[in-house]
Amino acid sequence: MTGNARPLSGLDPAIAARLKRSVDGLVPAIAQQYDTGEVLMLGWMDDEALHRTLTSGRCTYWSRSREEYWVKGETSGHAQHVKSVALDCDADALLVKVDQVGPACHTGTRTCFDADVLPLGQ
Amino acid sequence: MTGNARPLSGLDPAIAARLKRSVDGLVPAIAQQYDTGEVLMLGWMDDEALHRTLTSGRCTYWSRSREEYWVKGETSGHAQHVKSVALDCDADALLVKVDQVGPACHTGTRTCFDADVLPLGQ
Repeated sequence: MTGNARPLSGLDPAIAARLKRSVDGLVPAIAQQYDTGEVLMLGWMDDEALHRTLTSGRCTYWSRSREEYWVKGETSGHAQHVKSVALDCDADALLVKVDQVGPACHTGTRTCFDADVLPLGQ
Repeated sequence: MTGNARPLSGLDPAIAARLKRSVDGLVPAIAQQYDTGEVLMLGWMDDEALHRTLTSGRCTYWSRSREEYWVKGETSGHAQHVKSVALDCDADALLVKVDQVGPACHTGTRTCFDADVLPLGQ
């Protein structure tokens, strides 16, 4: 289930060697507000997006729909300033603690998980 | 980038019709401790795992390595009791708020993101 690294990434080779990618070469990245603990959104990173996130101080994702890098807030102004980045125990998921400017969701809500709570017990 | 639903799922067809799956048919599910806000782990759900999570009160994932359903805590006792389940704005990620019994991580740490913080700015 592990995809290959994409070429031309600036990611530290020691991190790249450990990263376990999904079949599409991507790793899910959870963005969490660093002080309140709110889970803001889930994005996807390839090696280069992770490299840019670690080195630029701004969350950078790979957009699966647009197939391009996407600096969160670049057009909306709703940036995510990176506080910390952690890999999980299996090295196949990332937790990025951020300071979110404004709403995280493109719909204008604070998080992307605010609007669609599913019914339990059915 | 959207996979097909697996057959024989008991998931409500109205939810299944909205769910956007990765190429492997899975959706990433973030498990968060409902009261402290800790992000505990990230697992993967197909339609049937989501159905079981919604109806059984216990988090159920699809194990990509073992290729089988996996009720969290079934062998370890470290269950996740489901408090709420939300889909994100794109219907391609899940946030499951849980009450975690004991450590969430198989390594014995509280969360799967405790041990491997990556260096910034390099």
